[in-house]
Amino acid sequence: MNPDFKTIALIGKHNTGTGAQSLARLGHFLASRGHEVFIAAHTADMCQISDFPVAPLKTICKRANLAIVMGGDGTLLNIARTLVDDRVPLIGINQGRLGFLADVSIDTMFSTLEDMLEGQYVAEERLLLDASVERHDDLLIAAYAFNDVVVNKSVTGRLIEFEVYIDSQFVYSQRADGLVVSSPTGSTAYSLSAGGPILHPTLEAFTMVPICPHTLSARAIAVNSRSDVEINLIHGDDARVHFDGQEHADLKVGDRVVVRRTRNTIRLLHPEGHNYFDTLREKLHWGEKL
Amino acid sequence: MNPDFKTIALIGKHNTGTGAQSLARLGHFLASRGHEVFIAAHTADMCQISDFPVAPLKTICKRANLAIVMGGDGTLLNIARTLVDDRVPLIGINQGRLGFLADVSIDTMFSTLEDMLEGQYVAEERLLLDASVERHDDLLIAAYAFNDVVVNKSVTGRLIEFEVYIDSQFVYSQRADGLVVSSPTGSTAYSLSAGGPILHPTLEAFTMVPICPHTLSARAIAVNSRSDVEINLIHGDDARVHFDGQEHADLKVGDRVVVRRTRNTIRLLHPEGHNYFDTLREKLHWGEKL
Amino acid sequence: MNPDFKTIALIGKHNTGTGAQSLARLGHFLASRGHEVFIAAHTADMCQISDFPVAPLKTICKRANLAIVMGGDGTLLNIARTLVDDRVPLIGINQGRLGFLADVSIDTMFSTLEDMLEGQYVAEERLLLDASVERHDDLLIAAYAFNDVVVNKSVTGRLIEFEVYIDSQFVYSQRADGLVVSSPTGSTAYSLSAGGPILHPTLEAFTMVPICPHTLSARAIAVNSRSDVEINLIHGDDARVHFDGQEHADLKVGDRVVVRRTRNTIRLLHPEGHNYFDTLREKLHWGEKL
Amino acid sequence: MNPDFKTIALIGKHNTGTGAQSLARLGHFLASRGHEVFIAAHTADMCQISDFPVAPLKTICKRANLAIVMGGDGTLLNIARTLVDDRVPLIGINQGRLGFLADVSIDTMFSTLEDMLEGQYVAEERLLLDASVERHDDLLIAAYAFNDVVVNKSVTGRLIEFEVYIDSQFVYSQRADGLVVSSPTGSTAYSLSAGGPILHPTLEAFTMVPICPHTLSARAIAVNSRSDVEINLIHGDDARVHFDGQEHADLKVGDRVVVRRTRNTIRLLHPEGHNYFDTLREKLHWGEKL
Repeated sequence: MNPDFKTIALIGKHNTGTGAQSLARLGHFLASRGHEVFIAAHTADMCQISDFPVAPLKTICKRANLAIVMGGDGTLLNIARTLVDDRVPLIGINQGRLGFLADVSIDTMFSTLEDMLEGQYVAEERLLLDASVERHDDLLIAAYAFNDVVVNKSVTGRLIEFEVYIDSQFVYSQRADGLVVSSPTGSTAYSLSAGGPILHPTLEAFTMVPICPHTLSARAIAVNSRSDVEINLIHGDDARVHFDGQEHADLKVGDRVVVRRTRNTIRLLHPEGHNYFDTLREKLHWGEKL
Repeated sequence: MNPDFKTIALIGKHNTGTGAQSLARLGHFLASRGHEVFIAAHTADMCQISDFPVAPLKTICKRANLAIVMGGDGTLLNIARTLVDDRVPLIGINQGRLGFLADVSIDTMFSTLEDMLEGQYVAEERLLLDASVERHDDLLIAAYAFNDVVVNKSVTGRLIEFEVYIDSQFVYSQRADGLVVSSPTGSTAYSLSAGGPILHPTLEAFTMVPICPHTLSARAIAVNSRSDVEINLIHGDDARVHFDGQEHADLKVGDRVVVRRTRNTIRLLHPEGHNYFDTLREKLHWGEKL
Repeated sequence: MNPDFKTIALIGKHNTGTGAQSLARLGHFLASRGHEVFIAAHTADMCQISDFPVAPLKTICKRANLAIVMGGDGTLLNIARTLVDDRVPLIGINQGRLGFLADVSIDTMFSTLEDMLEGQYVAEERLLLDASVERHDDLLIAAYAFNDVVVNKSVTGRLIEFEVYIDSQFVYSQRADGLVVSSPTGSTAYSLSAGGPILHPTLEAFTMVPICPHTLSARAIAVNSRSDVEINLIHGDDARVHFDGQEHADLKVGDRVVVRRTRNTIRLLHPEGHNYFDTLREKLHWGEKL
Repeated sequence: MNPDFKTIALIGKHNTGTGAQSLARLGHFLASRGHEVFIAAHTADMCQISDFPVAPLKTICKRANLAIVMGGDGTLLNIARTLVDDRVPLIGINQGRLGFLADVSIDTMFSTLEDMLEGQYVAEERLLLDASVERHDDLLIAAYAFNDVVVNKSVTGRLIEFEVYIDSQFVYSQRADGLVVSSPTGSTAYSLSAGGPILHPTLEAFTMVPICPHTLSARAIAVNSRSDVEINLIHGDDARVHFDGQEHADLKVGDRVVVRRTRNTIRLLHPEGHNYFDTLREKLHWGEKL
């Protein structure tokens, strides 16, 4: 047993008991190989698995050397936000189609994990976004996002106006449906739908992509992830900020949404032979060799 | 006095008294030239003008040979929806910047109108959109739109799924933030922000432009305005349909939004020498001759 | 035998003998059903078929009631340019993948043609582009195009500058790699690669789509096909005009490329049940019903 | 006199004598302040300036502590390619409109340079592209580019096919008019016209932007500038590679164009208060504060 991965936490898909059996089998597989196996409390409840010690995510992750997440990319996004501060490495097992993040297939997970736990893996560090919303001098909300922070119009459907600053330097003001600030990881998600470029995961960069901008000269821009991006809402009764499309907060005129990178990166472990471009090509239906 | 324009209705900007003086002076100018002048009830209230007979828009427009609207393009959109069934021609006077529709400047309105009322004008017919929302077998709402009918996600910010049919032929299903169905007039408005093409006003066409589509192969398509466009919401708890960005209705899964052209066109009168491309170039900041 | 299609011309792919056997079999099939079958001289040469009367394309088409073309969309483009003036209807048989134009599969051609020749077909009229290049007062070249007329930079790779006029009205000047003027048929070809919209075949419209424009505000515009489009080269040592990507001419500063629609349309016959959107969806890999 | 800038080389616009007087005055200004002033041989010829020691660019730059270039961004691109290996810092004086690179105005150059030479400047490091073309095992050509390396179709106007590899990993094959590989500096040039994103100059990244790709799923991608980008021409009789749009080479099927970053960066000196976003906003006509 590789002591680097002595203690392993198992985490399932949020709010669903699917994959319970696979998860239990995975736990026993790991235990039989000498690993100490914990299971996330929420997952244990959902999946009704009682074979392993149980603890809340936050607690368990202080002790785990590795977290194995069963679910799709959406599940991994959630878990990564929780684990990033503690630097627990992450392996994602997809139950269906290959994911950008969850790239160990459930069908071959035992043999793949066997190799990975022996050290045959490719590690990749990915930055997350650390966002906060400030109203006057108060911190209204703070949240991490793995993919993106989106400021947009809400229910009325009227466009909003905002100013963007990078490291306190004025960049532009814009009337638009909204703005996506995306990590490299998020560049293949909503940002891409809005017309943004794909950023290779190793880039130390964010993209800022306008959503349906009112001006014809608006373009996507990639900035350094060492920068602070500030979005200042200057018009729009009805604006919101979304974090990974999962949490949100209502905004008022004058609110400032500040986005910077998290201090730590999340460490993703991939099977050996992992190739970002292979995944890209498959997920985006890009052409194979002619 | 040109008998074609014997009776003229004056209409001001909605919900505002700005331009009251100009409107009154315009009324007296027209009356002095022998025209019968009516003023829209709502405008009379707002502007506190009591010099002319007053009537509700619907009534007055049955009697008017011409409507002169003072305001921007937004005001004209509203009035056009009301007038289109009665085929009352429309002149738009802009109080500020040149509009796509309101292209008589308030600064030169007397001399321009003098010429136009003598017959020196360019007439242009524009189609509007006639939209209805059907739930099961019921008509939920029906509305006209001059610019566009937009089906989109609402407050939650989650993408929606819909199928599109043209004349009952299946076109595509799509996951997206939404879809814009636009008239040629609307092709320089929201549709353009969403990446759609500009359609010359004489084209008998609609555009269908996806908003932040989930698939990379989605493209804008222009279809014949003799066609019925049907958008069938198949997923999305929280979708809305907007008509010219002014009225809206909440949608449920299974609802069908049907868009066709109005039976009648609206007749816009422009000063002689009017040129669509000049307006386009000025409004979109396109290049002059090099 | 349907007298509407008494005389049928068979035409094969340009410059290749592929499909010779199928073509001969098709000829005998038609002859056995009582049709008078001609074969295009060039095709007869290439395919070494001597079973049917032979004549040059131009001559034969004066006499044929129908032309059946075996090949892909590229072949059909060529033939359509030749046939359009004589209004000979056209059926396209694809030897491989479904085409936008050639939509009778060679695998099922006998049964499909049997039905079509009995009158079970959908007829569709498509406009072509009639282009000419004028230098000073001389006509330099005139050509038809089914898909598009493209003015672009040539070998040096330096951008060109041109002015565009619609019906002698100045539209814009532009610095770009070039400009695509496309028919509805061409809107799914090069124009689409350049970012243009798809135009339904029934639209009476051209698109003008800039190629890599120097200005951020350039957009695709669809204009009425009753209009004359004029492109005036004002800078660029090394520009060319291409017609359907097959013929071309070198341009000099001052040259004017004029594009209008052909007087006649080409008549395409499709199998019954033909649906433009089905083809679009298949060719563009658009989503099926979810 | 700031010893850091003891020896200064003066360089004018290529192939033109414009600005001769300003250049001479600038030389005397610098000499009067105790700097040793050299002038590039080519510039001395063109401008007929004989007041300062003359030497070829390559020689002079071994000795200079600073190069001051008078001209636009195009001139600076040229000079930067020559200076980058020797790490001579660069100041660009624009004779007309503000440039992205040449941002000292000729109108205020004496006072601005006075401050800059005293140390009041902002230094910025920019990477260049180091490209080579390999045929079989031979190096066909090697060249630097500051903006971009463009592989594209040439005179026939037919699209080309190529494969792209990043660090020997297959990325995609594509049929297109071409591909732009751009530095952050070049991201506001041709790459932007082709639909690419803007990259902040501090990013360690290239963009790869397809030109009129044949497939709808092609998108711009930004990759790490520590990577090698290889473009392998697999089809196209008539392809070329361009370096900064100034040098080029013809390509044959099988040729490989390899792009990596230069070992050294070029050091640009800007006046204090320089702000990249201000330049961007002015050059791209982006919105000011509303």
